[in-house]
Parts: sequence; C-alpha cells; structure tokens
Amino acid sequence: MNVTAVILAGGASTRFSPLTVSKPLFCFKAKPIILYLLEKLKYAGFKDVLIITNPEDNEQLIKFIKNNKRIQIVVQKEPNGMADALLSAENFLTGKPIFVLNASDLVEQTLFEKAAKRIQTAKNNFLVAKKQDNYFDGGYLQFSGGKLAAIVEKPGEGNQPSKLINLVFHYFKDSKEFMRILKKSKSDKDDVYELALSSLITSKPFEVIEYTGFWQPLKYPWHLLEMMNTILHTQLIAKNHAATVSDSAKIDGNVSLESGVKVLENAVIKGPSFIGKNTIIGTNSLIINSMIEESCVIGFGSEVCRSYIGPRTWLHHNYIGDSVLEGDNYCGSGAATANFRFDERTIRSVVSKKIIDSKRVKLGMIMAKKARLGVNACIMPGVKIGHSSFVGPGVVLVKDLAPNSLITVLQTTNIKKNLLIFSNRFPQLSLQQEKVTE
Amino acid sequence: MNVTAVILAGGASTRFSPLTVSKPLFCFKAKPIILYLLEKLKYAGFKDVLIITNPEDNEQLIKFIKNNKRIQIVVQKEPNGMADALLSAENFLTGKPIFVLNASDLVEQTLFEKAAKRIQTAKNNFLVAKKQDNYFDGGYLQFSGGKLAAIVEKPGEGNQPSKLINLVFHYFKDSKEFMRILKKSKSDKDDVYELALSSLITSKPFEVIEYTGFWQPLKYPWHLLEMMNTILHTQLIAKNHAATVSDSAKIDGNVSLESGVKVLENAVIKGPSFIGKNTIIGTNSLIINSMIEESCVIGFGSEVCRSYIGPRTWLHHNYIGDSVLEGDNYCGSGAATANFRFDERTIRSVVSKKIIDSKRVKLGMIMAKKARLGVNACIMPGVKIGHSSFVGPGVVLVKDLAPNSLITVLQTTNIKKNLLIFSNRFPQLSLQQEKVTE
Amino acid sequence: MNVTAVILAGGASTRFSPLTVSKPLFCFKAKPIILYLLEKLKYAGFKDVLIITNPEDNEQLIKFIKNNKRIQIVVQKEPNGMADALLSAENFLTGKPIFVLNASDLVEQTLFEKAAKRIQTAKNNFLVAKKQDNYFDGGYLQFSGGKLAAIVEKPGEGNQPSKLINLVFHYFKDSKEFMRILKKSKSDKDDVYELALSSLITSKPFEVIEYTGFWQPLKYPWHLLEMMNTILHTQLIAKNHAATVSDSAKIDGNVSLESGVKVLENAVIKGPSFIGKNTIIGTNSLIINSMIEESCVIGFGSEVCRSYIGPRTWLHHNYIGDSVLEGDNYCGSGAATANFRFDERTIRSVVSKKIIDSKRVKLGMIMAKKARLGVNACIMPGVKIGHSSFVGPGVVLVKDLAPNSLITVLQTTNIKKNLLIFSNRFPQLSLQQEKVTE
Repeated sequence: MNVTAVILAGGASTRFSPLTVSKPLFCFKAKPIILYLLEKLKYAGFKDVLIITNPEDNEQLIKFIKNNKRIQIVVQKEPNGMADALLSAENFLTGKPIFVLNASDLVEQTLFEKAAKRIQTAKNNFLVAKKQDNYFDGGYLQFSGGKLAAIVEKPGEGNQPSKLINLVFHYFKDSKEFMRILKKSKSDKDDVYELALSSLITSKPFEVIEYTGFWQPLKYPWHLLEMMNTILHTQLIAKNHAATVSDSAKIDGNVSLESGVKVLENAVIKGPSFIGKNTIIGTNSLIINSMIEESCVIGFGSEVCRSYIGPRTWLHHNYIGDSVLEGDNYCGSGAATANFRFDERTIRSVVSKKIIDSKRVKLGMIMAKKARLGVNACIMPGVKIGHSSFVGPGVVLVKDLAPNSLITVLQTTNIKKNLLIFSNRFPQLSLQQEKVTE
Repeated sequence: MNVTAVILAGGASTRFSPLTVSKPLFCFKAKPIILYLLEKLKYAGFKDVLIITNPEDNEQLIKFIKNNKRIQIVVQKEPNGMADALLSAENFLTGKPIFVLNASDLVEQTLFEKAAKRIQTAKNNFLVAKKQDNYFDGGYLQFSGGKLAAIVEKPGEGNQPSKLINLVFHYFKDSKEFMRILKKSKSDKDDVYELALSSLITSKPFEVIEYTGFWQPLKYPWHLLEMMNTILHTQLIAKNHAATVSDSAKIDGNVSLESGVKVLENAVIKGPSFIGKNTIIGTNSLIINSMIEESCVIGFGSEVCRSYIGPRTWLHHNYIGDSVLEGDNYCGSGAATANFRFDERTIRSVVSKKIIDSKRVKLGMIMAKKARLGVNACIMPGVKIGHSSFVGPGVVLVKDLAPNSLITVLQTTNIKKNLLIFSNRFPQLSLQQEKVTE
Repeated sequence: MNVTAVILAGGASTRFSPLTVSKPLFCFKAKPIILYLLEKLKYAGFKDVLIITNPEDNEQLIKFIKNNKRIQIVVQKEPNGMADALLSAENFLTGKPIFVLNASDLVEQTLFEKAAKRIQTAKNNFLVAKKQDNYFDGGYLQFSGGKLAAIVEKPGEGNQPSKLINLVFHYFKDSKEFMRILKKSKSDKDDVYELALSSLITSKPFEVIEYTGFWQPLKYPWHLLEMMNTILHTQLIAKNHAATVSDSAKIDGNVSLESGVKVLENAVIKGPSFIGKNTIIGTNSLIINSMIEESCVIGFGSEVCRSYIGPRTWLHHNYIGDSVLEGDNYCGSGAATANFRFDERTIRSVVSKKIIDSKRVKLGMIMAKKARLGVNACIMPGVKIGHSSFVGPGVVLVKDLAPNSLITVLQTTNIKKNLLIFSNRFPQLSLQQEKVTE
C-alpha cells in the first residue's frame, strides 16, 4: 500500500499526571499501547510507519520496535504540538501519501481496514469521523451542500454544527503539500495543525469516513480503565501458561495466567482478567475484571475489582476498586480505596488546577509509580498520588498528593494511666469523648 | 369462639428510634411482626380481629391483611395512649367479649392456646401474668387472700408486691362495660387504661393466667435481636428454594435460602440463619445466626454475626456484629462495628436523652434506613445512626448521629515534600509525631 | 559426670519489658525456655543441676521441675548480678566442678555434647566462645601467644581483640576456688563476675571451646521471634492430636495441632507452625510460620505471620505480622500491625529510654498480657504495649504505651445536619476538608 502511517507519539502528557510513563508506552498485558496500534496497522496492510517520539521515550521505543526496517523513528526535540511534530519529520515526508494518527487512541481493527481500503483508491484527502451523541470537547465537522466545509473546534454544548467529531486519523494524498501549508500556518495557540487542516479543507475536496466502533482517547488516567476493559473483553484468550493453581482456587470465565503465576488457596479470579508472569494471587483473595501485571503479590484477603495493577506491586488485605496503580506500589494491610460517593454523583478529580468530571460513578485512586500506602489508610474517590509518595497509616486522603511526599496524620490522643483494669476499682471506660465543630 | 382479639398497633415508638418503620410493621423474614401475631391468633381459634392502627400505617396494613373480612382496621388519629386507642374503636366494641393485646410483643403459641381454652368457659375477666425474677419496670400483681387485688405500676426494685408482672393480654367479658369505665377514668398521665383496669379489678372478680414461655416486648431497637434469635430458633425450616450455591460454599445447620439467592465461592453460612430472596452472599463471607432480608449484597470478605440486615443493603468487607441495619444501607470496605467493651460491661445507649442499659454484653450498632458508612469507619457499641445519614471514612463514631446528617473527620495532617525517596539522601522517616493530652 | 550445671535464672529483665513473665519461664509450645535447657543438659549427661532463681519465679519453677531430686533450686533475694547469684548458692558450691550457664540463651544440643565430652577429661577451666562477624556488644576474647589472656568487655566496633565472644557457658574445675575469688572481687558496677573470671584467666590456664552452632541470647522481646523460628524449624514434629479439621481447611507443611484444636472452613496453616490445645483457627484465616498457644480463637479472616500468640488470645479479622502477643490479648476487628517501614530501614524500639535498633527489617508489635486493641487500630513497627492496656478504636499507635493505660483518639469531626439526602435539593457532599500543617 502506497502510504506511510505517521504516528504522533511525542506529545506532553500533563493531563496524564501523576503517572510517570508516556501514554504510548503505558503497558497492558506487558505490551505498550503503541504496539497494539502497530499490530493493527500491520494487520490492515500498512507496511511503512513513521513514529514521531520525544527524546525521553526514544530509547525504549527502539527496544520495543526491534529491527523492523519499515518502521522509522524521528525525535521531536520539544513537545510543541502536532504541527511541529510533523515538521520535525519533514525530511521523511516528501510527497508520498501519509495517514496521520495519534499514538494512544484505542480503536477497533475495522477502522484501519476501512481506511486501508479507501486509501487504495483514494483520489482525495480524507479524515475519519465519529458520531457523538453527548457533547465532547473536540472538533466538530461542518458540512455545506453535503460536503465537508470546516471543522469547528470546541463549539460548546448546543452549538455543534453536526454530530460528527473529527478523530485524528487523517489521510493526506500529498504529504509535501501538507508540509507546505503547515509551514505557512501561524498561530499564538497550539492549533497550527488544525489551521492547516482547515485551510486544506477549504481549498480541496476532503472526504469523510464515518467510524462507528469503539473509540477511547487517552487524556486522563482514568481513561486507562476504559481501555483496559475493552482489551480484556476483546483481546484476551483464556490460557494457563504453566501457572500453579491451588486445588481450592477458582478460575471463572476468561482468564489468562502467564508463566510462573501462582494462585493460592481459596483465591477466586473472575474473568475477563489477566495475571502477568510470576505474579502471586494470595490466599483468599478475589480478582474481578482486572489486569495484574508481572511479579505482583496480591496478598491475603485482597480484592481487586475493575482495576489495573502495574508490575511489582504488593497488596496486602486491601480493597482496590476502579483504580490504576502504575507499578512498584506497596499497600499496607487494611488500606482501602473508596470508589463511590455517598451522594452517588459522578467523581471529580483535579487536573492542572481544574476540576474535571470523570463522568464515572465508580472511580477509585490513581497511584503513580513507587507510591505506598500505610495500614488502614483510606483513599477517597478520584484522588491521585504522586510517584514515590507515601500515605501514612490511618490517613483519610481527600486531596491529591504531590510526588516525593509523605503525608501522616497527627492524632490528638488522650491517655489515661494507672487504671486498675480487671479489678473492681476499675473505672468505667468511656470512649464518648470528642470535639465537634458544626 | 365468641371473642374479638383487639390488637393495639397504633402507638408512638419514640423509644424505637432511629428506626423509621412502626414496630408492628418491622419485618422478619419479609413478614411484619403483626402477621406473626395474626397467624398465632388464627391457629388458636381467634376468628374476629380488630386492629387499631395509626394514619401512617393504615395503608400498608391493609395491604398485608388483604381481603380477610374477619379482620377490621380502625385508625386512631393521634397516638394518645391505649385508652384513647380503644375508645376510637368504640363503635365496634358494643358488648361482645374482647381480648386486648399488644401488636409487637413476641410470645409463644401456647399463650394463645391457653387463653382460647379459658375464654370458652370464662365467667370472669382475666389477664395473663408472667413470673419475673429480675426487676422489670412494669406493672406487678398484688394479691389479697389469694385473689388479684391490684396492679402496682413500677414499684421500684425491692418493692415488688409479687413476682408476677402484668402482660398486655387482657380478657374483658363485657367490652361495653370496659368502654364505660375507660370513659370515666381521668388522668394527667398516660395511664388511663391502667386506672380503668384497676377499677375493674377492684369491683369484680379478675382471674390470672400464668404464662411461663418466652416473652419479648419491643421497646428498644436492640430487642429486635432477641426476637430475631427466637424466630430463628423456633420458626425456621431449612430449605433451599432454587438458590444457587457454589460448590465451595458451606451451608451449616438450619439455614433457609429463599428463591434467587446466590451463595458465592468459599462463603460460609451457619444456622440458624435466613437469607431473603435474590440476596447475594459474596465470596469469602461468613454469616452466623443472622437474618439477611431480600435483595442484599453481602460483599467479599464480610462477616455478619447475630445481626439483622434489612432489605437492599450492601456490605463490603465489613464486620457487623450484634447489630440492626434497617434496610437500604451501604457500608464501605473495612467499616466495622465494635460490639464489645474493653471493660466487659453491659452496653448503654442514649434514648430520649436518658442513658439506657441494654443489659447486653455484646451489642453493635443500630442503623436506620438509607444510612451509609464510609470506608474504615468504626461504630462504637450501642451507637445509633439516623436514617439517610452518612458516616465519613475513618470516623470513629462514639455518639448517636441524627437523621439526614453527614459526619466527617477533620484530620490534621503533616506533609513533607521533595523527599528524595529511595535515594541515599533520603532522610529517615519518622511517624512518631503526635500530640498527647493527658 | 562429676559436675553441677549451675543455671543463672534469677536476673532482672528490664530490657524484656513490657512482657510480664520472666525470661526463663516464657513458654514456647506450652513449655518454658528453661525446660528446653534442662532437657538438653539431661540428654548430654548432666545429672546434677542447681538453678538460681528469684523469689517471684520460685513457686512456678518448682511446679515445672516436679520431684526431680537431682535438680536443686536456690533463691537469690535481690537481682544483684551474676556474682551475687552464685554467692547466694555458696552452701551448695563446695568444691565440685561447676558448669555455669544462662537460663534463657538458646543454643543447639551440640554445645552441651561438646562441653560434656571436654568435662570428662578436663584438667583446666574452660569457656565456650563463638565467632561473631558483626560487632556484638559483649565480651571479646584476647589471646596472647595462642593462649587466652583476657576478656575485653564491649571494646566498641573496630576495637575487637579477636572475633571470638565469650558466651556464658563457663566450666570451673574447683567451685570453691571460684567462690573465693568472687568474694574478693569488688566493683561499683555490675561486673563482679567478669572481674573474677578475668582474675582466674590471668592466674591459671583457661581453655576455650569454640562453638559454631545457633546461639540466640534473649535480651529484647523481639529475640523471641528468632527463638520461636528456630524451635519451629528444629523441634517440631507434624502431628494431629485429635484435632478437628474442616474438609475445606488446608494444613500445609510441618504443622503440629494439639488436642482439641479446631480448624474451621477454608482456613490455611502453613508450616512450620504450632497450634496449642483447644485453640480455634477460624473460617478464612491464614497462619504462616507461627506459634499459637492454647485456648486461642483466631477469628474470621485473620492473618498471623511469623508471630507468637500467647494463650487465651482472641483475634478477629486482624493482620498480625512479626509480632509477640504475650497472652490473654484481644484484638478488635480490623486492628492491624504495620511490620515494615516505608523507607525499608531496620526497625527501632525504645528500651529504657534508649533507641535500640532491632536490626530487623520486619517487626510488628510487642503486646504484653491482657492488652487489647480496638477496631481498626494501627500499631506501628516495633511499638510495645504494656500489660492490661487498651488501644482505642482507630488509634494509630506510634509510641510505646505504659501498662494499665487507655489511649483513645480525639477526632475533630464536622457534622452537617438537615441534609435532604436523596432529594434534588441535596447539596453536593464534599469530604475535601482538612487542616494541613506543613
């Protein structure tokens, strides 16, 4: 197929905070998101791929790609937006058609099949659009006389020119031409790419492919839970690679146990779930619809429900619900996530000082790498914990915790001494002491 | 049998607070207390029944009674005591003998059998008495020359005229006569009924039937636990109505599983216990000597011991011991009841601003409808939570919480930032910080 | 064998605080430490034994010894050190060779075999020494011309005259002579015995037996965990003395179940572990490498890991890791030990106002007799709780608690009343209230 798939994988991920890994390199089932994308492209017939990455991820990306000569990697020096990303790859984009796409959106194979089919006969540029019934803060397609006339960015709820939104799956028949327009476009804001696209739409016929399948962009960390769930339901084959499962454990439904996994006494795993290699599912623990990556220990009496547990994490008698633990985490006995509000509203989270509604009724915590929880700590819904931070025992964490921090609770306690306990003179104990502010 | 059983079911229930349902309508095994009574009366041969209720309960009561034409319902407009209750039914009490009884006391079938037998040949009024070895704050029988002479109300410990107390199971040969006396009796206090009874005792022969079986009046909410226990031990037949029980679950002893029940992996239910329809007993949970009403979810790793769990309640990794949850309750992971005092004394509870000794060494919480507990909340023995109230995560609740309230803990926390954790320069952490007041 | 084994069992145990029992009488598997020693001596051929005890332990010691006429007990009136101890037994030490040893050090049988063999042909006094690679705060052997020249007490790290330390296994050919020297030795400090030993080493040939086996002195309470572990690994025979084990329970490895033990549904016991008579291992609990003495109840969902649980202790849904519970303890639901520091350092504990490094990375709590924990209490690593003391619900205990004390947490709470919960007017709840001191 005469096209180069250009994957934009170099952007900044401020909204992905506190997670430390780049979005395209986040791993599900020990495989980074970008590899899921590359596999789909390959399967659909895309042979030539150009990945635009950032300096930090370059090395790891090379490792993942191995020696595939049809995949090239270009480093964008600073995260200056999509236009700058493409321009940093200018030497490679000298006229051959390109199919520009985002590295971390999760879509179905059908999108690539449809695009590939169209590319083989395409005379014009095209983009992929998706009908969105609820308002989405992106670019909406405007039509005039049945033809694409413009893309209206963030029109505000009620002002949408159509129900179709513009996904970043853009086919440009002449890459050199698009480079030229990109260079001419000027803006103070981070919308140079969009301006160039609009200019092209205005000047030349621009077709639209409508896509009706699953689409999950990765902006906020809780989007990982949607992605995980989709991968669990569509890309998991029940298998048992030399795992050791106790006679009294129960594996129920579609569950993949990688090599070296141990499932101990009375543990229950309900599928779809993935258990990474060498992970131990401890006595009396319960795993429901979750991914647990490699070398974890899910200690005695823990429940993990609809959650992602990154590699080398130790749990111990915890409840982890609707949460993302990036990896190398440690949770003391009795520490628990709250994943549901008393008032049953959707859960909000503070991102870049703005309150973002996750639109989820159930959402637990987001815990970055190496963070740890003390015994009986409670983490409120939607709270995020920075990498290498510690939450002390008994803390009720109601706000996000910055990276490299330690939060402890300063309890005011009352000590009564010299009680003659278990004797007749022992005074009646009263715990009914408290200060109340109303 | 020529008698009308008159059931007093309309009284106020201030001492039953915070529970929202009326005492006679409280349901064990999805059946209200008053229905247990009606069944016993029917079985003993009482055919005509008159129920005096209040405006709030009327509708629901009609639903429970259905179309039984021998059962009449009269509404008492205000809860003005037993005398007023009977007088509101004056039109129905026109001479035929009546057997007056309380709607919510729990007694054995033998009492009704004995009373029915006596009624068939009775020439005089009679009442049912019970020997009480420990002092009870009620009316004691006084005898003179072997005959009932008076009833002494609340004589105080040590001043009892006999060991027999007056239960509210009163037979009046001529209801019209008793109505007349009731109308003549005047008092500032809520004792008109008792005055009329005394007046009748003085003027006419009044017989006494001694009852030796189980008797549990329902004053305070914890009395429900005694009642539940008796019903579990005497009115439960082990059965499995199309319930789904995991192979690894264990049903031990006399346990009734209603239709649609699911008992998941490794759950253990010890009888006598009742599990209402469509309730789920989750993985690794333990139920001991308890009633769990319909449509509950007893989540992973919960223990329910000697407790009543009302319908549509969700537990999740909780310990609920010796407690009453009215229904529609929700308990977050790790929330637990304390049901035992360090000093092993009996547990007290504040009712209408007075401290009442429950005389129970083990007593957990009383939780009204729709109340909810946050993760890792602790509820102290005998504490009561009003309906629709929320206890925040990590709260140690030592006092009763009013209805429609939210209590949260304001933790004083200490945050240390910019720790170079996991590096050599990482300072030694100390959690040994606290303020102590002695 | 012509020797009397002289066991020093009368010393004060301030560093053993808060435990209330004397070190030689602390029981593993219902047998006191001193009996382990007596058995080893007997097996190695030592027939005559003299035990020097204190007034408090005398009676109980007599009970343990029963009517063995070759074992004599002498009471030292005050705990005035080793020299005073020996001198209080002067009447019994009239010339026959003696082998002086400490009552509570745990060593292997080989030490006694080796000593016994040497005694049979010994012409000189001798002591037993052990090579120590890491610095130990005791007495080091100094040699001169290949012969023992002196013992250097606590030389400080780096100043050790050799790698050999002096254990208290001392053979004196002529007990009368040693008594004489003891009486002549004078010191302000508690080192009269050491002075006398040094004086003897200087004046006469003194031989050294090197011992290479396991040696665990008992200074601090956490040393009990090392001892327990050694006894579990070397002196435990898997057996089931008429215990009742549920079909769904699992006994894994070397586990001794004494008579009357009950192991309930889904419980798991991993060996080596010892379960004392009449103890109940509750539903869904997990025991790993632990000793649980008699008449305990390990309630539902508890985990006991590498811990010693003294007799008559009740647990309930707890995590007890690397801890010592002396006995008659009670732990409320959800109370948990923290046994690991966030910063992974070794755990310290305050003993006699000095910070002592336990040199253990994992160490939980030390809980003296009759102490109790409230629901969801958290005990920090290395914290010690005095006898008959109570830790209130929700307390995060970061410091040692004196005996006969009650510590409770005074929570500052916020109550919002008259919420119209579950109605449209219900305000959005926020738990994001906290005071922060930085």
